Amino acid sequence: MLEDDEAMEIALAEAALAEEHGDVPVGAVVVRGGVVVARRHNERERRADPTAHAEVLALRDAAAGSGGWRLDGCTVYSTLEPCPMCAGALLAARVDRVVFAAADPKAGACGSLYNLLADPRLNHEPDILAGVLAERAAGLLEAFFATRRTSR
Amino acid sequence: MLEDDEAMEIALAEAALAEEHGDVPVGAVVVRGGVVVARRHNERERRADPTAHAEVLALRDAAAGSGGWRLDGCTVYSTLEPCPMCAGALLAARVDRVVFAAADPKAGACGSLYNLLADPRLNHEPDILAGVLAERAAGLLEAFFATRRTSR
Repeated sequence: MLEDDEAMEIALAEAALAEEHGDVPVGAVVVRGGVVVARRHNERERRADPTAHAEVLALRDAAAGSGGWRLDGCTVYSTLEPCPMCAGALLAARVDRVVFAAADPKAGACGSLYNLLADPRLNHEPDILAGVLAERAAGLLEAFFATRRTSR
Repeated sequence: MLEDDEAMEIALAEAALAEEHGDVPVGAVVVRGGVVVARRHNERERRADPTAHAEVLALRDAAAGSGGWRLDGCTVYSTLEPCPMCAGALLAARVDRVVFAAADPKAGACGSLYNLLADPRLNHEPDILAGVLAERAAGLLEAFFATRRTSR
């Protein structure tokens, strides 16, 4: 079985790839039955697609690979606390569990500004684990934004 | 210029198309400069994609057509109040204005359960207009679910 920190390492490696095309370094991994079934990174700039966050892309890949939109049995790992769109996508996909690294005080919807994953009025409540390898994920983001500020 | 009810008529026509492949009838239209730049319907079942709600698909088409993820200047029409994922996508795309028909008391994130479009902590606050052709949109949904209950 893949441990949480091992899966998050893969998500961090994905996040680093986003920088190669000028995207904010966020990565996401979907695991089902102990196996990685999708791994993606943020491609908003690369694809000029406002919905191309790492989590959305990974969920779409996982669903395409399984042949169904319902991703029960899956755990999704993200290097950053999911935003409202991504938290909503995790609910829409009915994932069992969400693990994230760094909190996002500006847009986080899994505990920071909202907790969409723990609302009994909505139709699904996945388990949540926050803070796995958080410092490394936050470090990637800080380094990315520091470079951009310097180069402008 | 396209009036709000004219644009919503197009969204309703899209919604009806979803039923042909067993998807919940919701349609969405993106208008920029008085011109329809995207029109889609819910394709969750057809594509086996948990993120294939009408609004997400329409935003992706509109961005692809414009060459950039930032959809300022756009109004998005949806026949159903956007869910958390779709409301988050509307924020992520920085649309100017959101018009919807029927409210969604079970999952609506634009006034019913949440109002993600009117939160000064998030980075964008589009204008909202609710209730345009609401009865027709709700009627489509009711007829769809009534048929499914009968046939099971």
